[in-house]
Amino acid sequence: MLSSEVEDLAGKVRSKNQRGMARVLSMVENGHPLAPSILHSLYNPERSGLTIGVTGYPGAGKSTLTNRLIAYYRKHGCKVGVIAVDPSSPFSGGALLGDRLRMQDHASDPGVFIRSMGNRGHLGGLSGTTRDALEVFSAASYDPVLVETMGVGQAEVEIASLADITLLVLVPGLGDEVQTMKAGIMEIGDIIVLNKADRPGIEQLEMFVNASLDLIPDQISRPTVISCSALSGEGIEKLTDAIANCVSFGMGRRVIARRRTKLILRSIIREKGKELARKHVSDRYGSIEEAIESILEGKTTPYEIGEMLSGFLENKRENENECKRD
Amino acid sequence: MLSSEVEDLAGKVRSKNQRGMARVLSMVENGHPLAPSILHSLYNPERSGLTIGVTGYPGAGKSTLTNRLIAYYRKHGCKVGVIAVDPSSPFSGGALLGDRLRMQDHASDPGVFIRSMGNRGHLGGLSGTTRDALEVFSAASYDPVLVETMGVGQAEVEIASLADITLLVLVPGLGDEVQTMKAGIMEIGDIIVLNKADRPGIEQLEMFVNASLDLIPDQISRPTVISCSALSGEGIEKLTDAIANCVSFGMGRRVIARRRTKLILRSIIREKGKELARKHVSDRYGSIEEAIESILEGKTTPYEIGEMLSGFLENKRENENECKRD
Repeated sequence: MLSSEVEDLAGKVRSKNQRGMARVLSMVENGHPLAPSILHSLYNPERSGLTIGVTGYPGAGKSTLTNRLIAYYRKHGCKVGVIAVDPSSPFSGGALLGDRLRMQDHASDPGVFIRSMGNRGHLGGLSGTTRDALEVFSAASYDPVLVETMGVGQAEVEIASLADITLLVLVPGLGDEVQTMKAGIMEIGDIIVLNKADRPGIEQLEMFVNASLDLIPDQISRPTVISCSALSGEGIEKLTDAIANCVSFGMGRRVIARRRTKLILRSIIREKGKELARKHVSDRYGSIEEAIESILEGKTTPYEIGEMLSGFLENKRENENECKRD
Repeated sequence: MLSSEVEDLAGKVRSKNQRGMARVLSMVENGHPLAPSILHSLYNPERSGLTIGVTGYPGAGKSTLTNRLIAYYRKHGCKVGVIAVDPSSPFSGGALLGDRLRMQDHASDPGVFIRSMGNRGHLGGLSGTTRDALEVFSAASYDPVLVETMGVGQAEVEIASLADITLLVLVPGLGDEVQTMKAGIMEIGDIIVLNKADRPGIEQLEMFVNASLDLIPDQISRPTVISCSALSGEGIEKLTDAIANCVSFGMGRRVIARRRTKLILRSIIREKGKELARKHVSDRYGSIEEAIESILEGKTTPYEIGEMLSGFLENKRENENECKRD
């Protein structure tokens, strides 16, 4: 599986060569055939790099917060990676998206590597790309790596939850919005950040968030709630302390390694499973399009195809046994 | 595949027996082994029942709108089905969730069948359950069937998009929220409903929505934008006209049948693919847990497991050829 090109590129990432890294990130995004081998070579379940997801409704101040966190970790001598994910954008690469222009404060700092990711329609989806990009950043010793998503949409929550620790950013003054917000969304965050804490309504928001957290059944660990102002910088150290606490007390490196491994494996199983099932249906019907035609003509149903897929592994086992008997 | 029990239950659904329907819906939710056969028997790609998804941020007035639509379609002699989906709730069945109490207006009307669906952890997920429930409702001649989701979270957009036509409900006065809302969310809806049109800010919202729609590249059909007030009922007929137009002009029944079939097949492929890949990894490593241990011990990586899964179908083909050669 290993070729010299693979080892060369993996070596460049490990030695923190920025151009090599950019190259590997593009290969990951484009689904290059060598990408899985490079990722296999880079993979280290116990890598020390911490990944932090930043998610929340649009307008909650996620970009400003990310900017603050970059500044904080830089001040403490860390090399900081940033993956800015926008599922609604078709653009990827070095280009900075929309209101992320603010991050240009750090764009010329060699200790900060920022990568924007848009939806380029890669097979594993934006979530698969982000998952793999996180491995690349970590292998190049970026620590922490921040993953900022645009909102709390479909893909975005999934992406933010790929990180070791997820911050859910909320703001006061959303009125109805917050009052009727379901407790479900609270379960996204390891830390709930109440941003714009200088705004009116912060007490009500805090009460509401705590009341909602009380409602969540079977909590393994209750999220920490932190008030801050990303704009003024007030409360940022409380937040970074809470992040550090999550790692040292709440979870620990080993727990994080296990959780991370589970997440990556689960997501690869989902991605490859879909690929596998698609191929099998195509093998059987000629193509997915022809399977759809068969259904429209009333010759089969999606449920019968589903049962055929369910029986596939059993048939395979029988087939192999047949072979052995021969 | 067909047993008398399957035909008995499918028959009850077709003859609109409400208890039989409730029974089949529970079987679908619980992943009962007979459920796929019943669904296979009920499946009709050209069924006439129209399904309408209602989604949008919490507080946008989705329940009130759903209620209005039920009243409208009842007045026009339709039997109306409602699936109220709340991914954050563990409760399912007849129980009405949270602010859906309003729907009790219609709870005693035999021409309205309301089913709440919470997250009971069924394998295919809430989205798989909703997909199958829609088939059951349609087979029992409910037309239209409304699917209302709690918010625009992860699962919810996916669920709303299972419907033939999706309404995205927005309201004025969300300030920052709306201003920074990305065009991406607009792509969810076939019809964008600007609710609470009597509130200040409706003109800005309308301008903003239209400007955002202008930004979406490669639109096959631009969503219709309708202002209304679900509370007063004003503008509801404009909305139901737009829904009818979607069917007769924009899409047509055949287009809808094809789109529906594609969606269902894609979602079954995803669900079964995951099951298949999980089984295959378990076969190889003993269990998913043992695969995770192997990764943590550095014996393999998720990417190597991914490549093993990718090669699986090829190996299978070779295996079969081996058999044939013997």
